[in-house]
Amino acid sequence: MSFTLAEAKAADAADPLRPLRERFHLPEGLIYLDGNSLGALPRTAAARLNEVVTLEWGEELIRSWNSHDWIGAPQRVGAKIAPLIGARPNEVIVTDSTSVNLFKLLAAAARLSERSVLLSESGNFHTDLYVASGVADLLGLTLEIAPRSEVEARLGPDTGVLLLTHVHYKTAERFDMARVTARAKAAGAITVWDLSHSAGAVPLHLNEAGAELAVGCGYKYLNGGPGAPAFLYIAEHLQERLISPLRGWMGHAAPFAFTDDYAPAAGIDRFLAGTPPILSLAALEAGLDAFEGVTMERLWTKSRAMFDVFHALMEQNCPELACISPRGEEQRGSHISFSHPHAFEICQALIAAEVIGDFRSPDVIRFGLTPLYLGFEDIWVGVDRLAAIMTSESWRDPRFAVRGKVT
Amino acid sequence: MSFTLAEAKAADAADPLRPLRERFHLPEGLIYLDGNSLGALPRTAAARLNEVVTLEWGEELIRSWNSHDWIGAPQRVGAKIAPLIGARPNEVIVTDSTSVNLFKLLAAAARLSERSVLLSESGNFHTDLYVASGVADLLGLTLEIAPRSEVEARLGPDTGVLLLTHVHYKTAERFDMARVTARAKAAGAITVWDLSHSAGAVPLHLNEAGAELAVGCGYKYLNGGPGAPAFLYIAEHLQERLISPLRGWMGHAAPFAFTDDYAPAAGIDRFLAGTPPILSLAALEAGLDAFEGVTMERLWTKSRAMFDVFHALMEQNCPELACISPRGEEQRGSHISFSHPHAFEICQALIAAEVIGDFRSPDVIRFGLTPLYLGFEDIWVGVDRLAAIMTSESWRDPRFAVRGKVT
Repeated sequence: MSFTLAEAKAADAADPLRPLRERFHLPEGLIYLDGNSLGALPRTAAARLNEVVTLEWGEELIRSWNSHDWIGAPQRVGAKIAPLIGARPNEVIVTDSTSVNLFKLLAAAARLSERSVLLSESGNFHTDLYVASGVADLLGLTLEIAPRSEVEARLGPDTGVLLLTHVHYKTAERFDMARVTARAKAAGAITVWDLSHSAGAVPLHLNEAGAELAVGCGYKYLNGGPGAPAFLYIAEHLQERLISPLRGWMGHAAPFAFTDDYAPAAGIDRFLAGTPPILSLAALEAGLDAFEGVTMERLWTKSRAMFDVFHALMEQNCPELACISPRGEEQRGSHISFSHPHAFEICQALIAAEVIGDFRSPDVIRFGLTPLYLGFEDIWVGVDRLAAIMTSESWRDPRFAVRGKVT
Repeated sequence: MSFTLAEAKAADAADPLRPLRERFHLPEGLIYLDGNSLGALPRTAAARLNEVVTLEWGEELIRSWNSHDWIGAPQRVGAKIAPLIGARPNEVIVTDSTSVNLFKLLAAAARLSERSVLLSESGNFHTDLYVASGVADLLGLTLEIAPRSEVEARLGPDTGVLLLTHVHYKTAERFDMARVTARAKAAGAITVWDLSHSAGAVPLHLNEAGAELAVGCGYKYLNGGPGAPAFLYIAEHLQERLISPLRGWMGHAAPFAFTDDYAPAAGIDRFLAGTPPILSLAALEAGLDAFEGVTMERLWTKSRAMFDVFHALMEQNCPELACISPRGEEQRGSHISFSHPHAFEICQALIAAEVIGDFRSPDVIRFGLTPLYLGFEDIWVGVDRLAAIMTSESWRDPRFAVRGKVT
């Protein structure tokens, strides 16, 4: 290898972000390259959750809605996401799941636009396409799905809403948010961005880029825990013009007035729906607190260096695995993916060797590069173990072909 | 008092359900009559959540989706609710919030019916009416809101969906589910029941009553913690005929095939949307496990006895507070409510005296009677402290007029 283990260790020792790793629990001996499916456990999460459960719920009970500001959690936690995505604190709330938030924004944007077409990319993360198809079906609109290279050309006079994922979940291809948003806007369409594979790993400047609507996931690079609640962004200037299709009491102007008639809350709060999930929100807040004192730009610098090392090591040691992620720094995200006809079995063999990546159907292995807690030694060891599997062909062991419910 | 403290203690000693109280943490000295807003903490919840966080998330990470069956949690936890509401295990899932689930069922039912009117009750829990208004607006339907006494008479040839709350959140008035469902069905309408103030406290026999669609809350009598995920019931025979308007990947026939086209999962699973909130689900599961070995009929017997004692003590000792809950055993739920022009201040004075009920705007105090963990002594002491407040008029202290965000 051109990049030796000693060099990897030296790179970690020289890494100014290395101390951030101590904010997370990483199991001994495990190389965890799956941050973009489920981030690692922030060290403060267990204690924080225990406090919420035993003290706030157990002792103070219903009073905690005021005394521990449970009621303000969607906005408070949203405001902690805002600086990571280049938004104002009053432009982000945490609520529901990514799917539900997508539904709310797509339906609201479609109704605002009064045009008949929702446009998205084929091969986009599938829940995005499914939710869009549901919105189209419900509102009598047409969902057009175009190949990535043709999406922009398909923007037409009927396109009301463009739905794109900023960093592609599989390939890590990244859209130029400012350019595409402007292009769509010029064509009269509103863009909804899915930031699930960007937020917390790739610098985002939503305000600067002119982004108007976005959603994103809490459990990937934001390290909010399994099934963490998602976030929703609405640019200030649009907030009063949009109505949520999903009118829950928490989005009402006066949730505790118990009136029969709906009146939307001011600002982004109108996109809240039911009672906020306090336990899950507490875990996500612990994840966000692990970003304290670090800028996205510094994280991104490290992510890019990790990508380059990973790519070089793979080219040298695992040439059978073809990189499907773009190499250009402006075109990529914070994960790197490879294709192989036996990706599933190789991924299982890797997991057995204590290196965790993601299999993505039908033939992709994806590795998340989480700059907050991963280091260069992790990458070196991960690729080293993968190379051993490829050389020995140990992935051909039949036990690695057994599929679970989630594969 | 005709019912003395000694008699209350004797009633607790003779109560065969008394040992169930040990399954919950109840703060020393506090009389917690707020079970229908947030149930008490099940003793196993903190340990269970700690295990999910430190072991399942922290150590096993992404592998827990299979190894700890995170992926099956919505169905597994739903199946634990099923016997409490008289449904089959495959007819209940836990997902999203009550508001979001209401939206899904109302929209799906309205589209199935192809009629133009959604009918509900004025003074229904407001989120139900807001969600219904959103569905009506989205689908171009009419939302009719009729006074309780006129709802049934308003069922007409245009009524597609009837939305009712089984036990009224404020008064505790209970609908005869079997009769109303049959009446609506005869008129060609599908009924959606909100069971938020019934499930876990009042016996429910959804199958027997011919109920087809229902939702309910996880954080009240099911003791699932603040903002616990909600449940959704669909009678078996309707499951394949309904399509969720909210098409997330977890409701897809093959969530991990990553196809562009939506195909609903078989059965009730199609009403799942995003990634399940594992931490919140674990807490709710701990709450449901506290029902082990007890039937709803035994709980209901105790609830009725508590109601009668509460009512009698209030009549004798707090005549200024007018009971607004029905007295008939077939007409009531598991809470008891009183009106008073200064209900807010009285409620605050009570909280200061360590007795917790709920203020419900504009003039109601509501007390939840949770048969799992409350006893007759709790009720006696609670009314005794309330009587002292009423006699001394200590609620007139200006500090009791200060309102929080949640009131």
